[in-house]
Amino acid sequence: MMPKEFKEKIKVAFQGERGDYSQEAAFEFFGENIETIPCQAFKNVFELVERGKANFGIIPIENSLEGTIGQNYDLLKKSKLKIFGEQILKIRHCLIANQGVKMEEIKRVYSHPQALGQCRKFLEKKGSEVIPFYDTAGSVKMIKEKKLRDSAAIASEIAAKIYEMEILKKNIQTNHLNFTRFFILSKKEAPATKNDKTVLIFSIRHLPGALFKALRPFDIREINLTKIESRPIIGRPWEYDFILEFEGNRKDKKIKRALKDLKKVTTFLKIISSYSRN
Amino acid sequence: MMPKEFKEKIKVAFQGERGDYSQEAAFEFFGENIETIPCQAFKNVFELVERGKANFGIIPIENSLEGTIGQNYDLLKKSKLKIFGEQILKIRHCLIANQGVKMEEIKRVYSHPQALGQCRKFLEKKGSEVIPFYDTAGSVKMIKEKKLRDSAAIASEIAAKIYEMEILKKNIQTNHLNFTRFFILSKKEAPATKNDKTVLIFSIRHLPGALFKALRPFDIREINLTKIESRPIIGRPWEYDFILEFEGNRKDKKIKRALKDLKKVTTFLKIISSYSRN
Repeated sequence: MMPKEFKEKIKVAFQGERGDYSQEAAFEFFGENIETIPCQAFKNVFELVERGKANFGIIPIENSLEGTIGQNYDLLKKSKLKIFGEQILKIRHCLIANQGVKMEEIKRVYSHPQALGQCRKFLEKKGSEVIPFYDTAGSVKMIKEKKLRDSAAIASEIAAKIYEMEILKKNIQTNHLNFTRFFILSKKEAPATKNDKTVLIFSIRHLPGALFKALRPFDIREINLTKIESRPIIGRPWEYDFILEFEGNRKDKKIKRALKDLKKVTTFLKIISSYSRN
Repeated sequence: MMPKEFKEKIKVAFQGERGDYSQEAAFEFFGENIETIPCQAFKNVFELVERGKANFGIIPIENSLEGTIGQNYDLLKKSKLKIFGEQILKIRHCLIANQGVKMEEIKRVYSHPQALGQCRKFLEKKGSEVIPFYDTAGSVKMIKEKKLRDSAAIASEIAAKIYEMEILKKNIQTNHLNFTRFFILSKKEAPATKNDKTVLIFSIRHLPGALFKALRPFDIREINLTKIESRPIIGRPWEYDFILEFEGNRKDKKIKRALKDLKKVTTFLKIISSYSRN
Protein backbone atom coordinates (compact mmCIF):
# COMPACT_ATOMS: atom_id res chain seq x y z
CA MET A 1 0.00 0.00 0.00
CA MET A 2 2.01 2.92 -1.34
CA PRO A 3 1.29 6.22 0.42
CA LYS A 4 0.05 8.59 -2.32
CA GLU A 5 1.52 11.89 -1.14
CA PHE A 6 5.11 10.85 -1.94
CA LYS A 7 6.26 11.98 -5.39
CA GLU A 8 9.96 11.35 -4.83
CA LYS A 9 11.37 7.92 -4.08
CA ILE A 10 10.57 7.20 -0.47
CA LYS A 11 13.25 6.02 1.92
CA VAL A 12 12.60 3.01 4.15
CA ALA A 13 15.02 1.97 6.92
CA PHE A 14 15.27 -1.72 7.93
CA GLN A 15 17.50 -3.84 10.16
CA GLY A 16 19.84 -6.34 8.54
CA GLU A 17 21.64 -6.90 5.26
CA ARG A 18 20.20 -6.08 1.84
CA GLY A 19 18.03 -9.00 0.78
CA ASP A 20 16.82 -9.82 4.30
CA TYR A 21 13.17 -10.63 4.90
CA SER A 22 12.58 -7.12 6.32
CA GLN A 23 13.51 -5.66 2.95
CA GLU A 24 11.20 -8.13 1.21
CA ALA A 25 8.37 -7.03 3.55
CA ALA A 26 9.12 -3.37 2.68
CA PHE A 27 8.80 -4.19 -1.04
CA GLU A 28 5.50 -6.00 -0.39
CA PHE A 29 4.13 -2.98 1.44
CA PHE A 30 5.46 -0.10 -0.69
CA GLY A 31 6.28 -1.77 -4.02
CA GLU A 32 9.85 -2.08 -5.28
CA ASN A 33 10.28 1.55 -6.38
CA ILE A 34 11.68 2.66 -3.00
CA GLU A 35 15.09 3.33 -1.52
CA THR A 36 15.85 0.91 1.32
CA ILE A 37 18.42 1.76 4.00
CA PRO A 38 20.01 -1.17 5.89
CA CYS A 39 20.71 -0.56 9.61
CA GLN A 40 22.79 -2.52 12.11
CA ALA A 41 20.24 -2.52 14.94
CA PHE A 42 16.49 -2.00 15.38
CA LYS A 43 17.31 1.11 17.43
CA ASN A 44 18.98 2.66 14.37
CA VAL A 45 15.80 2.12 12.33
CA PHE A 46 13.87 4.21 14.88
CA GLU A 47 16.60 6.88 14.92
CA LEU A 48 16.65 7.31 11.13
CA VAL A 49 12.88 7.85 11.03
CA GLU A 50 12.93 10.15 14.08
CA ARG A 51 15.67 12.31 12.53
CA GLY A 52 13.89 12.46 9.16
CA LYS A 53 16.70 10.56 7.34
CA ALA A 54 14.12 7.94 6.34
CA ASN A 55 10.40 8.49 5.63
CA PHE A 56 9.49 5.11 7.08
CA GLY A 57 11.02 2.26 9.03
CA ILE A 58 10.05 -1.40 8.99
CA ILE A 59 10.52 -3.73 11.98
CA PRO A 60 9.53 -7.36 12.58
CA ILE A 61 7.18 -7.60 15.56
CA GLU A 62 6.29 -11.29 15.77
CA ASN A 63 6.96 -14.54 13.98
CA SER A 64 4.67 -17.56 14.01
CA LEU A 65 7.54 -19.87 15.07
CA GLU A 66 9.74 -17.58 17.18
CA GLY A 67 7.11 -15.48 18.93
CA THR A 68 7.00 -11.77 19.78
CA ILE A 69 10.11 -9.63 19.37
CA GLY A 70 9.92 -8.00 22.79
CA GLN A 71 12.67 -5.43 22.28
CA ASN A 72 10.73 -3.81 19.42
CA TYR A 73 7.74 -3.26 21.70
CA ASP A 74 10.18 -1.76 24.22
CA LEU A 75 11.47 0.61 21.54
CA LEU A 76 7.87 1.53 20.59
CA LYS A 77 7.12 2.20 24.26
CA LYS A 78 9.97 4.74 24.42
CA SER A 79 9.63 6.29 20.95
CA LYS A 80 7.29 9.01 19.66
CA LEU A 81 6.93 7.20 16.33
CA LYS A 82 3.56 5.91 15.13
CA ILE A 83 2.60 2.75 13.26
CA PHE A 84 1.64 3.56 9.69
CA GLY A 85 0.61 0.01 8.82
CA GLU A 86 1.44 -3.67 9.12
CA GLN A 87 2.72 -6.26 6.67
CA ILE A 88 2.44 -10.01 7.14
CA LEU A 89 5.09 -11.87 5.14
CA LYS A 90 5.23 -15.58 4.44
CA ILE A 91 8.83 -16.70 4.97
CA ARG A 92 9.88 -18.65 1.86
CA HIS A 93 13.44 -19.96 1.97
CA CYS A 94 15.40 -20.54 -1.26
CA LEU A 95 18.63 -22.40 -1.94
CA ILE A 96 20.85 -19.86 -3.67
CA ALA A 97 24.19 -20.30 -5.50
CA ASN A 98 26.54 -18.49 -7.89
CA GLN A 99 25.42 -18.25 -11.55
CA GLY A 100 25.82 -21.50 -13.47
CA VAL A 101 26.40 -23.67 -10.37
CA LYS A 102 24.36 -26.90 -10.43
CA MET A 103 22.55 -28.57 -7.52
CA GLU A 104 24.85 -31.62 -7.59
CA GLU A 105 27.98 -29.44 -7.16
CA ILE A 106 26.80 -28.17 -3.76
CA LYS A 107 28.77 -29.67 -0.86
CA ARG A 108 28.11 -27.02 1.80
CA VAL A 109 25.10 -24.87 2.75
CA TYR A 110 25.45 -21.61 4.71
CA SER A 111 22.72 -19.68 6.51
CA HIS A 112 21.46 -18.31 9.82
CA PRO A 113 20.92 -21.22 12.28
CA GLN A 114 17.15 -20.48 12.40
CA ALA A 115 16.83 -20.75 8.61
CA LEU A 116 18.96 -23.93 8.58
CA GLY A 117 16.71 -25.41 11.25
CA GLN A 118 13.60 -24.44 9.27
CA CYS A 119 14.91 -26.32 6.19
CA ARG A 120 16.16 -29.38 8.09
CA LYS A 121 14.21 -32.00 6.11
CA PHE A 122 15.47 -30.65 2.77
CA LEU A 123 19.06 -30.48 4.08
CA GLU A 124 18.95 -34.01 5.51
CA LYS A 125 17.76 -35.35 2.15
CA LYS A 126 20.39 -33.37 0.26
CA GLY A 127 23.11 -34.52 2.67
CA SER A 128 25.37 -31.41 2.33
CA GLU A 129 27.48 -30.07 5.18
CA VAL A 130 25.53 -27.37 7.06
CA ILE A 131 27.44 -24.28 8.21
CA PRO A 132 25.78 -21.72 10.50
CA PHE A 133 26.27 -18.08 9.50
CA TYR A 134 25.18 -14.85 11.22
CA ASP A 135 22.61 -13.76 8.62
CA THR A 136 20.58 -15.23 5.71
CA ALA A 137 21.23 -12.57 3.06
CA GLY A 138 24.74 -12.12 4.49
CA SER A 139 25.51 -15.74 3.58
CA VAL A 140 24.47 -15.08 -0.05
CA LYS A 141 26.75 -12.01 -0.12
CA MET A 142 29.64 -14.07 1.29
CA ILE A 143 29.43 -16.96 -1.21
CA LYS A 144 29.23 -14.37 -4.02
CA GLU A 145 32.25 -12.39 -2.78
CA LYS A 146 34.31 -15.53 -2.25
CA LYS A 147 33.06 -16.96 -5.60
CA LEU A 148 32.36 -20.32 -3.91
CA ARG A 149 31.14 -22.90 -6.45
CA ASP A 150 30.71 -25.83 -4.05
CA SER A 151 28.53 -23.87 -1.63
CA ALA A 152 25.01 -22.48 -1.50
CA ALA A 153 23.14 -20.20 0.91
CA ILE A 154 19.60 -20.24 2.27
CA ALA A 155 17.87 -16.87 2.02
CA SER A 156 14.94 -14.99 0.45
CA GLU A 157 14.15 -14.75 -3.26
CA ILE A 158 14.90 -11.02 -2.97
CA ALA A 159 18.44 -11.82 -1.76
CA ALA A 160 19.07 -13.88 -4.93
CA LYS A 161 17.79 -10.99 -7.06
CA ILE A 162 19.80 -8.28 -5.29
CA TYR A 163 23.10 -10.16 -5.38
CA GLU A 164 22.34 -11.47 -8.93
CA MET A 165 22.62 -15.09 -7.89
CA GLU A 166 20.83 -18.21 -9.03
CA ILE A 167 17.95 -19.87 -7.20
CA LEU A 168 18.49 -23.64 -7.24
CA LYS A 169 15.27 -24.42 -5.39
CA LYS A 170 12.41 -22.40 -3.89
CA ASN A 171 10.27 -23.11 -0.81
CA ILE A 172 12.66 -25.51 0.89
CA GLN A 173 11.26 -24.83 4.40
CA THR A 174 9.82 -27.80 6.33
CA ASN A 175 7.00 -25.92 8.05
CA HIS A 176 5.01 -23.86 5.58
CA LEU A 177 3.22 -21.88 8.29
CA ASN A 178 6.13 -19.53 8.91
CA PHE A 179 4.93 -15.92 8.88
CA THR A 180 6.46 -12.72 10.20
CA ARG A 181 4.39 -9.65 11.03
CA PHE A 182 6.08 -6.27 10.50
CA PHE A 183 5.14 -2.76 11.62
CA ILE A 184 5.74 0.19 9.32
CA LEU A 185 7.00 3.11 11.43
CA SER A 186 6.46 6.77 10.63
CA LYS A 187 6.17 10.15 12.33
CA LYS A 188 2.43 10.36 11.57
CA GLU A 189 -0.41 7.90 11.76
CA ALA A 190 -2.19 6.90 8.54
CA PRO A 191 -5.74 8.30 8.10
CA ALA A 192 -8.44 6.25 9.89
CA THR A 193 -10.20 3.49 7.93
CA LYS A 194 -12.99 1.05 8.80
CA ASN A 195 -10.41 -1.72 9.03
CA ASP A 196 -8.10 -0.44 11.76
CA LYS A 197 -6.36 -1.95 14.75
CA THR A 198 -4.95 -0.13 17.78
CA VAL A 199 -1.93 -1.13 19.83
CA LEU A 200 -1.15 0.04 23.35
CA ILE A 201 1.08 -0.81 26.29
CA PHE A 202 -0.05 -0.59 29.91
CA SER A 203 1.20 -1.56 33.36
CA ILE A 204 -0.72 -2.80 36.35
CA ARG A 205 0.26 -3.92 39.83
CA HIS A 206 -0.76 -7.30 41.32
CA LEU A 207 -1.97 -9.29 38.36
CA PRO A 208 -5.10 -11.33 39.23
CA GLY A 209 -7.92 -8.85 39.77
CA ALA A 210 -6.17 -6.02 37.96
CA LEU A 211 -5.84 -7.72 34.57
CA PHE A 212 -9.48 -8.78 34.72
CA LYS A 213 -10.48 -5.16 35.44
CA ALA A 214 -8.28 -3.90 32.61
CA LEU A 215 -10.01 -6.16 30.07
CA ARG A 216 -13.55 -5.42 31.24
CA PRO A 217 -13.87 -2.06 29.34
CA PHE A 218 -13.21 -3.99 26.10
CA ASP A 219 -15.50 -6.88 27.00
CA ILE A 220 -18.57 -4.77 27.79
CA ARG A 221 -18.18 -2.87 24.48
CA GLU A 222 -17.56 -6.06 22.47
CA ILE A 223 -14.23 -4.81 21.20
CA ASN A 224 -12.32 -7.66 19.57
CA LEU A 225 -8.87 -8.18 21.07
CA THR A 226 -6.27 -9.45 18.59
CA LYS A 227 -3.23 -9.74 20.87
CA ILE A 228 -2.49 -9.77 24.58
CA GLU A 229 0.85 -10.38 26.14
CA SER A 230 2.27 -9.92 29.61
CA ARG A 231 5.86 -8.87 29.94
CA PRO A 232 7.30 -9.29 33.44
CA ILE A 233 9.49 -6.35 34.40
CA ILE A 234 12.43 -8.25 35.86
CA GLY A 235 13.82 -6.53 38.93
CA ARG A 236 10.33 -5.21 39.77
CA PRO A 237 8.59 -8.50 40.58
CA TRP A 238 5.08 -7.11 41.19
CA GLU A 239 4.83 -5.06 38.03
CA TYR A 240 3.93 -6.17 34.53
CA ASP A 241 3.76 -4.51 31.16
CA PHE A 242 0.95 -5.64 28.91
CA ILE A 243 0.82 -5.32 25.17
CA LEU A 244 -2.76 -5.15 23.93
CA GLU A 245 -4.01 -4.97 20.36
CA PHE A 246 -7.65 -4.71 19.34
CA GLU A 247 -9.88 -3.90 16.39
CA GLY A 248 -10.94 -0.29 15.87
CA ASN A 249 -9.41 3.18 15.69
CA ARG A 250 -8.44 5.14 18.80
CA LYS A 251 -10.72 7.94 17.60
CA ASP A 252 -13.87 5.74 17.47
CA LYS A 253 -16.38 6.69 20.15
CA LYS A 254 -16.58 3.29 21.86
CA ILE A 255 -12.80 2.84 21.77
CA LYS A 256 -12.33 6.29 23.35
CA ARG A 257 -14.67 5.28 26.18
CA ALA A 258 -12.89 1.96 26.71
CA LEU A 259 -9.51 3.73 26.85
CA LYS A 260 -10.86 6.21 29.42
CA ASP A 261 -11.98 3.29 31.63
CA LEU A 262 -8.68 1.47 31.09
CA LYS A 263 -6.68 4.51 32.25
CA LYS A 264 -8.40 4.35 35.66
CA VAL A 265 -7.10 0.84 36.44
CA THR A 266 -3.53 1.08 35.07
CA THR A 267 -0.35 2.55 36.57
CA PHE A 268 0.97 3.37 33.08
CA LEU A 269 -0.76 3.63 29.70
CA LYS A 270 0.67 4.50 26.32
CA ILE A 271 -1.53 4.29 23.25
CA ILE A 272 1.08 3.62 20.60
CA SER A 273 -0.95 3.95 17.43
CA SER A 274 -3.95 3.00 15.33
CA TYR A 275 -3.22 1.57 11.89
CA SER A 276 -4.90 -0.17 9.00
CA ARG A 277 -4.69 -3.96 9.26
CA ASN A 278 -2.94 -6.08 6.63
CA MET B 1 18.59 -27.50 42.89
CA MET B 2 20.09 -30.95 42.36
CA PRO B 3 17.49 -33.75 42.32
CA LYS B 4 18.49 -36.10 45.16
CA GLU B 5 17.59 -39.47 43.68
CA PHE B 6 20.39 -39.38 41.09
CA LYS B 7 23.55 -41.15 42.25
CA GLU B 8 25.27 -41.34 38.85
CA LYS B 9 26.20 -38.26 36.86
CA ILE B 10 23.00 -36.94 35.36
CA LYS B 11 22.79 -36.10 31.66
CA VAL B 12 21.30 -32.77 30.59
CA ALA B 13 20.58 -31.96 26.92
CA PHE B 14 20.73 -28.33 25.71
CA GLN B 15 20.60 -26.52 22.39
CA GLY B 16 23.75 -24.81 21.11
CA GLU B 17 27.52 -25.06 21.44
CA ARG B 18 29.32 -25.97 24.66
CA GLY B 19 29.68 -22.79 26.71
CA ASP B 20 26.36 -21.28 25.56
CA TYR B 21 24.09 -19.62 28.10
CA SER B 22 21.83 -22.70 28.17
CA GLN B 23 24.73 -24.74 29.52
CA GLU B 24 25.45 -22.04 32.09
CA ALA B 25 21.80 -22.20 33.18
CA ALA B 26 22.07 -26.00 33.50
CA PHE B 27 25.11 -25.60 35.79
CA GLU B 28 23.22 -23.03 37.90
CA PHE B 29 20.31 -25.43 38.32
CA PHE B 30 22.10 -28.76 38.79
CA GLY B 31 25.61 -27.74 39.84
CA GLU B 32 28.62 -28.37 37.61
CA ASN B 33 28.92 -32.12 38.30
CA ILE B 34 26.68 -33.11 35.38
CA GLU B 35 27.17 -34.33 31.84
CA THR B 36 25.81 -31.80 29.31
CA ILE B 37 24.83 -32.89 25.79
CA PRO B 38 24.83 -30.19 23.08
CA CYS B 39 22.03 -30.48 20.47
CA GLN B 40 21.56 -28.73 17.13
CA ALA B 41 17.90 -27.82 17.58
CA PHE B 42 15.40 -27.43 20.45
CA LYS B 43 13.47 -30.36 18.97
CA ASN B 44 16.50 -32.61 19.55
CA VAL B 45 16.57 -31.63 23.23
CA PHE B 46 12.99 -32.91 23.58
CA GLU B 47 13.82 -36.10 21.65
CA LEU B 48 16.83 -36.98 23.82
CA VAL B 49 14.77 -36.69 27.01
CA GLU B 50 11.78 -38.55 25.51
CA ARG B 51 14.04 -41.44 24.40
CA GLY B 52 15.78 -41.60 27.79
CA LYS B 53 19.18 -40.60 26.32
CA ALA B 54 19.22 -37.62 28.69
CA ASN B 55 17.68 -37.40 32.17
CA PHE B 56 16.77 -33.74 31.70
CA GLY B 57 16.65 -31.09 29.02
CA ILE B 58 16.99 -27.33 29.38
CA ILE B 59 15.34 -24.83 27.02
CA PRO B 60 15.16 -21.02 27.07
CA ILE B 61 11.54 -19.91 27.26
CA GLU B 62 11.72 -16.13 27.42
CA ASN B 63 14.26 -13.35 27.51
CA SER B 64 13.69 -9.91 29.01
CA LEU B 65 14.90 -8.19 25.81
CA GLU B 66 13.85 -10.62 23.07
CA GLY B 67 10.52 -11.86 24.46
CA THR B 68 8.95 -15.32 24.50
CA ILE B 69 10.46 -18.14 22.46
CA GLY B 70 7.21 -19.27 20.86
CA GLN B 71 8.50 -22.43 19.21
CA ASN B 72 9.44 -23.89 22.60
CA TYR B 73 5.85 -23.49 23.81
CA ASP B 74 4.76 -25.19 20.56
CA LEU B 75 7.10 -28.09 21.34
CA LEU B 76 5.74 -28.28 24.91
CA LYS B 77 2.21 -28.33 23.50
CA LYS B 78 3.02 -31.39 21.39
CA SER B 79 5.31 -33.24 23.83
CA LYS B 80 4.48 -35.48 26.78
CA LEU B 81 7.42 -34.06 28.77
CA LYS B 82 6.87 -32.21 32.02
CA ILE B 83 8.59 -29.19 33.50
CA PHE B 84 10.79 -30.17 36.41
CA GLY B 85 11.75 -26.61 37.34
CA GLU B 86 12.79 -23.21 36.06
CA GLN B 87 16.04 -21.28 36.10
CA ILE B 88 16.37 -17.55 35.62
CA LEU B 89 19.83 -16.59 34.39
CA LYS B 90 21.32 -13.13 34.25
CA ILE B 91 23.08 -12.78 30.89
CA ARG B 92 26.59 -11.50 31.57
CA HIS B 93 28.73 -11.01 28.48
CA CYS B 94 32.54 -11.28 28.67
CA LEU B 95 35.27 -10.27 26.23
CA ILE B 96 37.30 -13.45 25.70
CA ALA B 97 40.67 -13.99 23.99
CA ASN B 98 43.46 -16.56 23.67
CA GLN B 99 45.77 -16.99 26.69
CA GLY B 100 48.27 -14.16 27.10
CA VAL B 101 46.57 -11.81 24.60
CA LYS B 102 46.24 -8.25 25.91
CA MET B 103 43.30 -5.87 25.55
CA GLU B 104 45.30 -3.44 23.38
CA GLU B 105 46.13 -6.19 20.84
CA ILE B 106 42.44 -6.74 19.99
CA LYS B 107 41.51 -5.36 16.56
CA ARG B 108 38.40 -7.47 15.86
CA VAL B 109 35.52 -8.75 18.01
CA TYR B 110 33.38 -11.75 16.96
CA SER B 111 30.00 -12.79 18.38
CA HIS B 112 26.34 -13.42 17.67
CA PRO B 113 24.71 -10.18 16.37
CA GLN B 114 22.42 -10.03 19.43
CA ALA B 115 25.37 -10.17 21.83
CA LEU B 116 27.28 -7.57 19.76
CA GLY B 117 24.22 -5.32 19.89
CA GLN B 118 23.92 -5.81 23.65
CA CYS B 119 27.55 -4.66 24.12
CA ARG B 120 27.40 -1.76 21.69
CA LYS B 121 28.53 0.97 24.11
CA PHE B 122 31.59 -1.04 25.14
CA LEU B 123 32.46 -1.82 21.51
CA GLU B 124 32.05 1.78 20.37
CA LYS B 125 34.42 2.95 23.11
CA LYS B 126 36.91 0.21 22.28
CA GLY B 127 36.72 1.01 18.54
CA SER B 128 37.49 -2.55 17.30
CA GLU B 129 36.02 -3.96 14.10
CA VAL B 130 32.83 -5.89 14.90
CA ILE B 131 32.23 -9.18 13.04
CA PRO B 132 28.89 -11.02 13.37
CA PHE B 133 29.13 -14.77 13.97
CA TYR B 134 26.42 -17.42 14.24
CA ASP B 135 26.89 -18.21 17.95
CA THR B 136 28.46 -16.71 21.08
CA ALA B 137 30.36 -19.77 22.38
CA GLY B 138 31.00 -20.80 18.75
CA SER B 139 32.98 -17.58 18.24
CA VAL B 140 35.21 -18.44 21.24
CA LYS B 141 35.80 -21.91 19.78
CA MET B 142 36.69 -20.40 16.41
CA ILE B 143 39.26 -17.87 17.67
CA LYS B 144 40.83 -20.66 19.74
CA GLU B 145 41.03 -23.10 16.80
CA LYS B 146 42.42 -20.44 14.45
CA LYS B 147 44.76 -19.21 17.24
CA LEU B 148 43.81 -15.59 16.46
CA ARG B 149 45.78 -13.14 18.60
CA ASP B 150 44.30 -9.91 17.24
CA SER B 151 40.70 -11.04 17.86
CA ALA B 152 38.36 -11.58 20.79
CA ALA B 153 34.90 -13.07 21.18
CA ILE B 154 31.89 -12.06 23.28
CA ALA B 155 30.38 -14.98 25.21
CA SER B 156 29.63 -16.31 28.70
CA GLU B 157 32.16 -16.83 31.50
CA ILE B 158 31.50 -20.59 31.14
CA ALA B 159 32.61 -20.46 27.48
CA ALA B 160 35.98 -19.00 28.54
CA LYS B 161 36.36 -21.76 31.14
CA ILE B 162 35.39 -24.62 28.81
CA TYR B 163 37.68 -23.54 25.97
CA GLU B 164 40.43 -22.54 28.47
CA MET B 165 40.55 -18.98 27.23
CA GLU B 166 41.25 -15.69 28.98
CA ILE B 167 38.58 -13.21 30.09
CA LEU B 168 39.77 -9.69 29.23
CA LYS B 169 36.69 -8.00 30.69
CA LYS B 170 33.49 -9.13 32.41
CA ASN B 171 29.99 -7.58 32.29
CA ILE B 172 30.44 -5.59 29.10
CA GLN B 173 26.71 -5.50 28.28
CA THR B 174 25.03 -2.08 28.04
CA ASN B 175 21.69 -3.06 29.55
CA HIS B 176 22.15 -4.89 32.81
CA LEU B 177 18.54 -6.09 32.95
CA ASN B 178 19.06 -8.94 30.50
CA PHE B 179 17.62 -12.16 31.91
CA THR B 180 16.65 -15.43 30.29
CA ARG B 181 14.17 -17.84 31.86
CA PHE B 182 14.74 -21.54 31.19
CA PHE B 183 12.54 -24.60 31.71
CA ILE B 184 14.04 -27.89 32.89
CA LEU B 185 12.35 -30.73 31.00
CA SER B 186 11.89 -34.24 32.34
CA LYS B 187 9.58 -37.23 32.00
CA LYS B 188 8.14 -36.70 35.48
CA GLU B 189 7.02 -33.66 37.42
CA ALA B 190 8.90 -32.68 40.56
CA PRO B 191 7.04 -33.29 43.87
CA ALA B 192 4.60 -30.49 44.81
CA THR B 193 5.88 -27.67 47.04
CA LYS B 194 4.24 -24.58 48.53
CA ASN B 195 6.05 -22.44 45.98
CA ASP B 196 4.78 -23.87 42.69
CA LYS B 197 3.62 -22.43 39.41
CA THR B 198 1.51 -24.14 36.75
CA VAL B 199 1.71 -23.59 32.99
CA LEU B 200 -1.01 -24.47 30.49
CA ILE B 201 -2.01 -23.80 26.90
CA PHE B 202 -5.61 -23.32 25.79
CA SER B 203 -7.52 -22.26 22.68
CA ILE B 204 -10.70 -20.24 22.41
CA ARG B 205 -12.74 -18.93 19.49
CA HIS B 206 -13.71 -15.25 19.07
CA LEU B 207 -11.51 -13.42 21.50
CA PRO B 208 -13.43 -10.67 23.35
CA GLY B 209 -15.95 -12.39 25.61
CA ALA B 210 -14.18 -15.73 25.56
CA LEU B 211 -10.87 -14.56 27.02
CA PHE B 212 -12.69 -12.70 29.74
CA LYS B 213 -14.65 -15.87 30.58
CA ALA B 214 -11.46 -17.93 30.56
CA LEU B 215 -9.81 -15.66 33.14
CA ARG B 216 -12.84 -15.45 35.45
CA PRO B 217 -12.21 -18.84 37.17
CA PHE B 218 -8.80 -17.53 38.26
CA ASP B 219 -10.10 -14.10 39.25
CA ILE B 220 -12.86 -15.37 41.55
CA ARG B 221 -10.42 -17.68 43.35
CA GLU B 222 -7.72 -14.98 43.64
CA ILE B 223 -5.18 -17.11 41.78
CA ASN B 224 -2.18 -14.99 40.83
CA LEU B 225 -1.45 -15.07 37.10
CA THR B 226 2.25 -14.73 36.26
CA LYS B 227 2.10 -14.85 32.44
CA ILE B 228 -0.50 -14.53 29.73
CA GLU B 229 0.17 -14.51 26.03
CA SER B 230 -2.00 -14.87 22.97
CA ARG B 231 -0.58 -16.67 19.97
CA PRO B 232 -2.53 -16.15 16.77
CA ILE B 233 -2.80 -19.37 14.79
CA ILE B 234 -1.97 -18.03 11.35
CA GLY B 235 -4.10 -19.62 8.67
CA ARG B 236 -6.96 -20.02 11.19
CA PRO B 237 -7.84 -16.34 11.74
CA TRP B 238 -10.54 -16.81 14.39
CA GLU B 239 -8.57 -19.12 16.65
CA TYR B 240 -5.97 -18.28 19.24
CA ASP B 241 -3.69 -20.23 21.50
CA PHE B 242 -3.11 -18.78 24.93
CA ILE B 243 -0.21 -19.51 27.22
CA LEU B 244 -1.16 -19.03 30.86
CA GLU B 245 1.02 -19.36 33.93
CA PHE B 246 -0.17 -18.91 37.50
CA GLU B 247 0.84 -19.54 41.09
CA GLY B 248 -0.13 -22.87 42.66
CA ASN B 249 0.07 -26.60 41.93
CA ARG B 250 -2.38 -28.36 39.61
CA LYS B 251 -3.29 -30.68 42.49
CA ASP B 252 -4.36 -27.85 44.84
CA LYS B 253 -8.10 -27.86 45.49
CA LYS B 254 -8.82 -24.33 44.29
CA ILE B 255 -6.62 -24.76 41.20
CA LYS B 256 -8.44 -27.99 40.31
CA ARG B 257 -11.76 -26.15 40.50
CA ALA B 258 -10.49 -23.27 38.35
CA LEU B 259 -9.19 -25.74 35.73
CA LYS B 260 -12.57 -27.52 35.64
CA ASP B 261 -14.30 -24.17 34.95
CA LEU B 262 -11.67 -23.21 32.37
CA LYS B 263 -12.23 -26.46 30.46
CA LYS B 264 -15.87 -25.49 29.89
CA VAL B 265 -15.02 -22.30 27.98
CA THR B 266 -12.06 -23.51 25.86
CA THR B 267 -11.89 -25.47 22.61
CA PHE B 268 -8.55 -27.01 23.62
CA LEU B 269 -6.80 -27.27 26.99
CA LYS B 270 -3.46 -28.84 27.84
CA ILE B 271 -2.10 -28.51 31.37
CA ILE B 272 1.61 -28.77 30.67
CA SER B 273 3.02 -29.02 34.18
CA SER B 274 3.33 -27.70 37.69
CA TYR B 275 6.84 -26.89 38.88
CA SER B 276 8.68 -25.17 41.68
CA ARG B 277 9.45 -21.52 40.94
CA ASN B 278 13.01 -20.21 40.76
